[in-house]
Amino acid sequence: MKRVVTLGEIMLRLSTPGFERFVQADSFDVCYGGGEANCCVSLSNYGLETRFVTKVPDNEIGQSAVNSLRRYGVDTSFIPRGGDRLGIYFLESGASQRPSKVIYDRAHAAIAEAKSDEFDWDGIFEGADWFHFTGITPALSDAAAELTLAALKAAKAKGITVSVDLNYRKKLWSQAKAQEVMTKLMEYVDVCIGNEEDAEKVFGIKAQGTDIHKGEINHVAYEEVAKQIIEKFNVKLVASTLRESYSASDNGWSAILFDGEKSYLSKKYDLRIVDRVGGGDSFASGLIYGLVTELPYQEALEFAVAASALKHTIPGDTNHVSKEEVLTLMGGDGSGRVQR
Amino acid sequence: MKRVVTLGEIMLRLSTPGFERFVQADSFDVCYGGGEANCCVSLSNYGLETRFVTKVPDNEIGQSAVNSLRRYGVDTSFIPRGGDRLGIYFLESGASQRPSKVIYDRAHAAIAEAKSDEFDWDGIFEGADWFHFTGITPALSDAAAELTLAALKAAKAKGITVSVDLNYRKKLWSQAKAQEVMTKLMEYVDVCIGNEEDAEKVFGIKAQGTDIHKGEINHVAYEEVAKQIIEKFNVKLVASTLRESYSASDNGWSAILFDGEKSYLSKKYDLRIVDRVGGGDSFASGLIYGLVTELPYQEALEFAVAASALKHTIPGDTNHVSKEEVLTLMGGDGSGRVQR
Amino acid sequence: MKRVVTLGEIMLRLSTPGFERFVQADSFDVCYGGGEANCCVSLSNYGLETRFVTKVPDNEIGQSAVNSLRRYGVDTSFIPRGGDRLGIYFLESGASQRPSKVIYDRAHAAIAEAKSDEFDWDGIFEGADWFHFTGITPALSDAAAELTLAALKAAKAKGITVSVDLNYRKKLWSQAKAQEVMTKLMEYVDVCIGNEEDAEKVFGIKAQGTDIHKGEINHVAYEEVAKQIIEKFNVKLVASTLRESYSASDNGWSAILFDGEKSYLSKKYDLRIVDRVGGGDSFASGLIYGLVTELPYQEALEFAVAASALKHTIPGDTNHVSKEEVLTLMGGDGSGRVQR
Amino acid sequence: MKRVVTLGEIMLRLSTPGFERFVQADSFDVCYGGGEANCCVSLSNYGLETRFVTKVPDNEIGQSAVNSLRRYGVDTSFIPRGGDRLGIYFLESGASQRPSKVIYDRAHAAIAEAKSDEFDWDGIFEGADWFHFTGITPALSDAAAELTLAALKAAKAKGITVSVDLNYRKKLWSQAKAQEVMTKLMEYVDVCIGNEEDAEKVFGIKAQGTDIHKGEINHVAYEEVAKQIIEKFNVKLVASTLRESYSASDNGWSAILFDGEKSYLSKKYDLRIVDRVGGGDSFASGLIYGLVTELPYQEALEFAVAASALKHTIPGDTNHVSKEEVLTLMGGDGSGRVQR
Amino acid sequence: MKRVVTLGEIMLRLSTPGFERFVQADSFDVCYGGGEANCCVSLSNYGLETRFVTKVPDNEIGQSAVNSLRRYGVDTSFIPRGGDRLGIYFLESGASQRPSKVIYDRAHAAIAEAKSDEFDWDGIFEGADWFHFTGITPALSDAAAELTLAALKAAKAKGITVSVDLNYRKKLWSQAKAQEVMTKLMEYVDVCIGNEEDAEKVFGIKAQGTDIHKGEINHVAYEEVAKQIIEKFNVKLVASTLRESYSASDNGWSAILFDGEKSYLSKKYDLRIVDRVGGGDSFASGLIYGLVTELPYQEALEFAVAASALKHTIPGDTNHVSKEEVLTLMGGDGSGRVQR
Amino acid sequence: MKRVVTLGEIMLRLSTPGFERFVQADSFDVCYGGGEANCCVSLSNYGLETRFVTKVPDNEIGQSAVNSLRRYGVDTSFIPRGGDRLGIYFLESGASQRPSKVIYDRAHAAIAEAKSDEFDWDGIFEGADWFHFTGITPALSDAAAELTLAALKAAKAKGITVSVDLNYRKKLWSQAKAQEVMTKLMEYVDVCIGNEEDAEKVFGIKAQGTDIHKGEINHVAYEEVAKQIIEKFNVKLVASTLRESYSASDNGWSAILFDGEKSYLSKKYDLRIVDRVGGGDSFASGLIYGLVTELPYQEALEFAVAASALKHTIPGDTNHVSKEEVLTLMGGDGSGRVQR
Repeated sequence: MKRVVTLGEIMLRLSTPGFERFVQADSFDVCYGGGEANCCVSLSNYGLETRFVTKVPDNEIGQSAVNSLRRYGVDTSFIPRGGDRLGIYFLESGASQRPSKVIYDRAHAAIAEAKSDEFDWDGIFEGADWFHFTGITPALSDAAAELTLAALKAAKAKGITVSVDLNYRKKLWSQAKAQEVMTKLMEYVDVCIGNEEDAEKVFGIKAQGTDIHKGEINHVAYEEVAKQIIEKFNVKLVASTLRESYSASDNGWSAILFDGEKSYLSKKYDLRIVDRVGGGDSFASGLIYGLVTELPYQEALEFAVAASALKHTIPGDTNHVSKEEVLTLMGGDGSGRVQR
Repeated sequence: MKRVVTLGEIMLRLSTPGFERFVQADSFDVCYGGGEANCCVSLSNYGLETRFVTKVPDNEIGQSAVNSLRRYGVDTSFIPRGGDRLGIYFLESGASQRPSKVIYDRAHAAIAEAKSDEFDWDGIFEGADWFHFTGITPALSDAAAELTLAALKAAKAKGITVSVDLNYRKKLWSQAKAQEVMTKLMEYVDVCIGNEEDAEKVFGIKAQGTDIHKGEINHVAYEEVAKQIIEKFNVKLVASTLRESYSASDNGWSAILFDGEKSYLSKKYDLRIVDRVGGGDSFASGLIYGLVTELPYQEALEFAVAASALKHTIPGDTNHVSKEEVLTLMGGDGSGRVQR
Repeated sequence: MKRVVTLGEIMLRLSTPGFERFVQADSFDVCYGGGEANCCVSLSNYGLETRFVTKVPDNEIGQSAVNSLRRYGVDTSFIPRGGDRLGIYFLESGASQRPSKVIYDRAHAAIAEAKSDEFDWDGIFEGADWFHFTGITPALSDAAAELTLAALKAAKAKGITVSVDLNYRKKLWSQAKAQEVMTKLMEYVDVCIGNEEDAEKVFGIKAQGTDIHKGEINHVAYEEVAKQIIEKFNVKLVASTLRESYSASDNGWSAILFDGEKSYLSKKYDLRIVDRVGGGDSFASGLIYGLVTELPYQEALEFAVAASALKHTIPGDTNHVSKEEVLTLMGGDGSGRVQR
Repeated sequence: MKRVVTLGEIMLRLSTPGFERFVQADSFDVCYGGGEANCCVSLSNYGLETRFVTKVPDNEIGQSAVNSLRRYGVDTSFIPRGGDRLGIYFLESGASQRPSKVIYDRAHAAIAEAKSDEFDWDGIFEGADWFHFTGITPALSDAAAELTLAALKAAKAKGITVSVDLNYRKKLWSQAKAQEVMTKLMEYVDVCIGNEEDAEKVFGIKAQGTDIHKGEINHVAYEEVAKQIIEKFNVKLVASTLRESYSASDNGWSAILFDGEKSYLSKKYDLRIVDRVGGGDSFASGLIYGLVTELPYQEALEFAVAASALKHTIPGDTNHVSKEEVLTLMGGDGSGRVQR
Repeated sequence: MKRVVTLGEIMLRLSTPGFERFVQADSFDVCYGGGEANCCVSLSNYGLETRFVTKVPDNEIGQSAVNSLRRYGVDTSFIPRGGDRLGIYFLESGASQRPSKVIYDRAHAAIAEAKSDEFDWDGIFEGADWFHFTGITPALSDAAAELTLAALKAAKAKGITVSVDLNYRKKLWSQAKAQEVMTKLMEYVDVCIGNEEDAEKVFGIKAQGTDIHKGEINHVAYEEVAKQIIEKFNVKLVASTLRESYSASDNGWSAILFDGEKSYLSKKYDLRIVDRVGGGDSFASGLIYGLVTELPYQEALEFAVAASALKHTIPGDTNHVSKEEVLTLMGGDGSGRVQR
Repeated sequence: MKRVVTLGEIMLRLSTPGFERFVQADSFDVCYGGGEANCCVSLSNYGLETRFVTKVPDNEIGQSAVNSLRRYGVDTSFIPRGGDRLGIYFLESGASQRPSKVIYDRAHAAIAEAKSDEFDWDGIFEGADWFHFTGITPALSDAAAELTLAALKAAKAKGITVSVDLNYRKKLWSQAKAQEVMTKLMEYVDVCIGNEEDAEKVFGIKAQGTDIHKGEINHVAYEEVAKQIIEKFNVKLVASTLRESYSASDNGWSAILFDGEKSYLSKKYDLRIVDRVGGGDSFASGLIYGLVTELPYQEALEFAVAASALKHTIPGDTNHVSKEEVLTLMGGDGSGRVQR
């Protein structure tokens, strides 16, 4: 069985029930998530072996984060305990013209202040086939950027395939800082995933003629961007989701993959959204699944898009769908008839 | 006032809250339902007298099932107690491309092991105008098939009109077994209701050129199927809902009725779905209401379709709408303006 | 900072969870609201000073109503205590073809039996720039109609601008009675707001060729109605929301404003509805905000429509959106992308 | 099977979750109850036939009240529809030194304004063995007092045994008014139940040397009071619960019965209270059960006390215990060991 | 680190919220548990390695049961999938004089129909120090009894210490059958745990002069029973909890251990009960912890009693306390002061 | 009307539902609280004017904290916005031998990094009669200690009475640091409140012969401690609650006040605890109420103890009781009889 390792932050997610706004809430729904952790859960659900690496505080909140991963089969045995706190994010779900809103309270998280020598890199990457990280981790702090670099070096030393999801977060760092740090890390990357804004914000590479607030999609422009990334960083594959945001309730959802020579365009799904947080992570994990199990590129892409389409219908950060459910949707049955 | 009797299984329904998947659930919403029980509740809501016949275990779970029917005015005084358990089904509600999923845990239910002599057929059918059952009941077990036959004989002996909703369930029996058993029971049936797949699965009668997973509808083909059913089983009326499954969230909904000579096609509703379980039962009960109160066929059909359109907006198995609410929708007001 | 005063009833709202019907509910969600109170909360959220005037019973239910306003910054220091009870309304939320339903239990509310001399009109209107009421308040009782008249006289004596939202409620009074009372009160009104039915029901002024149950909109007819209102009552502005009710789940939403010479038509939003109660109030408060802060008419109208579009996505009676959120939507970003 | 009829008000009960105070509540738990209705549910749970008579408004709130009784097997077929509203009471549950608190909002309830000729007294009392009412019903209004009198006359004309639970409510009427009205009604009463304060408040008959706020009990004094009631009103039996209120969480609970010659004292239970509302009603219904099924007085009393002890552990107004459960506790097993 | 293996059934537990009775419940709280599974979770919480062996159906309900164990660190990699269903039990929590009530619906569970050759016994016991089972497992079915025997043989072949918790369940088998089967299994047992009734029901060995329904405890009699068990079955240790059931809310809780020569009596705790299900399992796992980590007998016993005292304050089947928390209570701090 | 000002931190409190442990929680109940904020709410509930001073982040979480105070009538107009975050604390409620547990996540809160010149001290203390703070505020950070000092100087300059609740928190600072800082602040204090451990931890003044973990109380020793505090810091009054912790569920609760000459001992209450967080704050606010309204010392103390006894029965940090409710309990009625 293939094994995938990821490194990153796992946060306590506190979301208002239903469509309540923050100022109305008397309780928060609790789950735990983060880009890389979400990928591990998805990949475990598809039957792969996964291992998540982070650091959590030595208290019940940290333990609960670990438990949320063990519950779905993720190996958490390489997670040191210590530091001050677990990062938190608050979420209220939007609808129609009202966007979902996230308030981050993640500064000083244990993982943001962790050091490379707290981790057993050799054990971590033993038997691993793939290593995945996102642009959020190095953005957390200089220490976290160094940690990411250490992980990449260790992974590459073992000949492990590396993917990155760029995931630019403007509240974590400036574009200049992002470009400086990420450029260094891209040296180790084989597969680069980014949504519409990332390439521009992180590398200054712009998809011409696209205005994401209008929901327009320009495949030609995306291909151009992908080409530039491949040339600049010598990666093998570049992939991007294509989200058409009609509203907070309804999105168009497809993706594109470029292998340096040919671009693959997926089927498009019209989504009624239940919870779109983690949508990008579910695409990344779907794509990793397809690539690590050596599906043809078009199939790997369709798997990733179908998987992430389903994620938008599931509350929480993580994508609880089986391989069979993804294949059924890829196979064309999106009729939503009751499965008895 | 007209009185309708139904016979069948009532199950404990355990559904995940909101759009949670089974593996996420920390609580289940509880209700009780089953095809024939659901019909009784609907018909009571329209003002008819109804009586539900089943068998439940002699414990609080069985009693709660009975109570869920008494609450809405269904006569439950002919329900013997005993047997091992109440059947259970687990439900998670789908959305968009993700279908709803049902896990059945109904084997060894009290009703599946009940015998005809436990029931006071004479009392059960006293004063009754109509008897309704579904293809699920005889599928439960050989004993349940015999029980159904006994009920049909008793009903026919009193000259009561009989309707069936074919409701083929592939997990309960094979097509061959279904055809064998149902063919015998059809001898007693006056009105035959089936959705798109039932005629083919139960009787091998196929609607040409229809692919239910594509959501296409072919009225001519349906009429042809209905004709065959009428000829083969000498029933008076054949009716079918026409569900166009765009997704788990959005369906088109209409129906067709054939009286051997003429086919009646209803208005079509575009549904935003809250809970589609029991949608077929709400159509059956709407149609029974129309026929037993002697509405013209077109009106009876429109009543049934409007009633079942409303069901799709109500959580739980049963249809809590009044006759007046159905008539308002039939009359053309589907604007959804607040009723103050 | 501008200060707005409103006078009216605040009720205990008891709504069924999710899409449950009344007969299914085992708990009610609790909030407190009423047309004029809702306006105060909205206006406080935009940063204005607001004061709500009513009377509540001297018990914890009355106090909770007051607290629900203080919580969002509304001045409640001019609310006398006494009388028998707080009015109540029960709400079940509709979906698709099933309309939302309201059951009122508001007779004998404290405010309906309050007398003018229980209120310190001088204090109430001190420093106020605007006074707003709705047609619901004078409809509550003869006493309440007198109270409204007293408030209007006191407001006018201080030169305060007055707006009314006609809000005809057929369960509270007849058209004849409404016309008699409202005609007297219109003498004090500067800005008249009404939805589609109000002008006809209250003043017998009909928008030609509009059938609200069909969801058709006829701007020319509305302009004609507005003109008649302006001529008859010498008001400065007439505004109306234009709701196209496709279903209980989906509405078109725009508005029109007429200043006696020119009519302004807003952008139209396609709404997925979470909770449409208070939609009209959120329009009124948005318009008051625009007018009292002296935005150009077109902008004031766009602010009001965008604000009330957002309201439809928020559970409860009141509109919890900031000025910035409204401006973002007005500015064209209705894409619903996550705000991080 | 014995049949018991009761007449009275059924109210919507809105209680705060857990131990929340009114001002903290964002939702209310919903149930329906009232002294006489509670008795019917209890008696149905013991296997008797019961019929509840009241009037409810012709809306879904009224229907829900009716459904709450049908659910547990109470015959509700003699309940006319009409009037303005269903009475409401708000409840917050106390603990330790903090008492539970009730806010009534019951004025203008349908039953309070009902007239005798709306009821089919002949049908109501057909086949009845016992009629029970409480002092709350005549206290609701003069109309309700007349209604009670009409019911008593009809019951007596059929030779039915009559019981009353005095249940003095100071917010409904004065002691003087109570004494005037109740004295007239006592003429028809065979069994008189009252708690510690009732005899004094309603008839001016005082138990010497008892201070209910101290939780002291004086059996001799109670016997003296009972004797006076028997002499004055010619009733056959007088019974009283003996509540020792150590706190809102812990009570001592026993009862006394006097038959004119001998007084019977029950076992005493130390209660940890979950919900004490309806505790008196569960005693009354337990006693009625014992008397109508002709248990010896001591056993009837023990049944009533054990039944009502159990009620204190059940949320809601009504007592959901079986005859077998009461008998087990009467038999001495109060160990609370898990029943598997 | 020590490793403990257990074999048994894991069930879906459906419990009513708060103190609701079954007939009142509209939702069930969900957890998963069973005697041996509960022990694994406790032991994992103390830092040991644990492995749970069972069989679950190949659906999401079975998977959720497995996830509930992985979440807390239990190794579930030796659990085959298949069979018809997961066993279910329904629970309502008692209070005061009302006992908690359990309704079992566990017939035909996957584990009850599993065969020995579906399990990799060699892998299961690799590296194990202790094997624990309860008398429930062999009681499930003849197949399960054989399975238990196979496990015992495999464990003993590896020289693993074996403990049993007798746990007699009268609904699963007769005393005669229990005695026949358990006598055979006792041959492999080193440590025998039983509560007050088990020795008598399973082996006909009675503690003289103890009436469990009276809550009396007779240590001398218990010692006598233990002595007989040791003599008859050649076990090394016999332990028993001593529950004094004052009521469903309050219990006395202590335990006794006999090593053939000396008996050890623990400290006694007065418990306010939150959830007593799993109390015995938490004692067994506490004792196993003490014995496998080679604490002196008195300390091991005190650890077990303190651990299980804490369990009574935690909702659900499993005991979520750390070793440190148990040691603190053993050390004498039961003051319940807030830990900040 | 008297006005009380307090300064301190308000935190987001996230508590597990019911008795769930942190690792079990899928949702958190939300409220906002902190020692000084809790006092303001209590005092507003008694009818005084109150003003709370803090700093909150400029986001919806900060605003929600402010709203939670406005809701109950606290003046929040002197709260600057800014800084990084609102402090958080996680709470699980204990029972019986299991203590409640608090996890703090309060570092880097806005108030901990606020500077004195962000506050309008003149406005803050305008019209104030009393200023209250706790030992928690200066413990937050050096900046917060300076802020506290600035407030004290401003208050004293206006001749305002000052009280402190020592509230030593070992996770915030060492005893040495506490002693150094608090000694400086005591110069401005008139009334010193402390629970059992504070005097020793903060000032090294020990109550002889008291072991708080045993729940023993030694009044003489307390008086000795109080005398030392008065002598050392020249305060006028020293008060202390006397908590006897039998368990997490049951406490004895009384208090002592010393005026330098005479010591006053209150009545003692046996508490069944619902939520003991904020118990000390409710005592402090009760005492402030008594002193600022000039009740005799014994009465002020009884008011404080009765008020805080009631707090233990109310969920959340704050004490929602009226002056009348406190007086009733002081007057001796702790019987817990239903208030109708």
